[in-house]
Amino acid sequence: MQEDEKYMSLALEEARLAAQQDEIPVGCIIVSQGQIIGRGHNLTQTLQDVTAHAEIQAITAAAQTLGGKYLTQATLYVTLEPCVMCAGAIGWAQISRLVYGASDDKRGYTRFAPQALHPKCVVSSGIFADECQQLLQDFFQHKRL
Amino acid sequence: MQEDEKYMSLALEEARLAAQQDEIPVGCIIVSQGQIIGRGHNLTQTLQDVTAHAEIQAITAAAQTLGGKYLTQATLYVTLEPCVMCAGAIGWAQISRLVYGASDDKRGYTRFAPQALHPKCVVSSGIFADECQQLLQDFFQHKRL
Repeated sequence: MQEDEKYMSLALEEARLAAQQDEIPVGCIIVSQGQIIGRGHNLTQTLQDVTAHAEIQAITAAAQTLGGKYLTQATLYVTLEPCVMCAGAIGWAQISRLVYGASDDKRGYTRFAPQALHPKCVVSSGIFADECQQLLQDFFQHKRL
Repeated sequence: MQEDEKYMSLALEEARLAAQQDEIPVGCIIVSQGQIIGRGHNLTQTLQDVTAHAEIQAITAAAQTLGGKYLTQATLYVTLEPCVMCAGAIGWAQISRLVYGASDDKRGYTRFAPQALHPKCVVSSGIFADECQQLLQDFFQHKRL
């Protein structure tokens, strides 16, 4: 299994943890120099806090792991395209690579804040996109029942 | 003193607390139905966390105060125009009014994510803009010495 697939499957595990807590299933893993330095999943409902997205949790955790707020060597894996808020945070953290699974046409940063990331940040998308999307669809389907 | 000036002067007090901790001086107050429900100042350096902007702290605090994550009746006062990350958070929280002091041409949301706020959010700017800006200038001037 390739590196990106390996870490995205771990991000999917985080997303499943969110679903188990009745949270919109989005998960995130941050990797630097072959080590996982942060992980997180959406907790907005549990914490009653709109800022508790997977990426924000993972960025805060990664900064604690490193003892520094800039994550210039890091790759952030997330199952869903980041929103404007999270893209802004990824930009401030100077994360050098972003890999996301499913696109988010309604709320994604590529539509609403395409310049939010650091100018040198390299972006890959579509890794396990179907699995990432399916998890969200299953969640909302279940909600409607 | 008008309502907006009253709360912006309290946001300026928060910003001064940041400066005293060697943080870029930005302060924020959230008001709902005549009550302050959240406040915060920039703590990115102290917490070594890029997400610890004044607005993020205040939104998290306000949600705890209300016991709910949506701040639909609230006005957020902040001394500096919100960045993309914070505008995204203000949007998610469905804050109905934003009042900011100084503009931020380099990092402000009006340039990089003009649609980040809730579509019904009403925005006022320029309240005590000179004082808000001066506090930032004094901080960076002192840093250069």
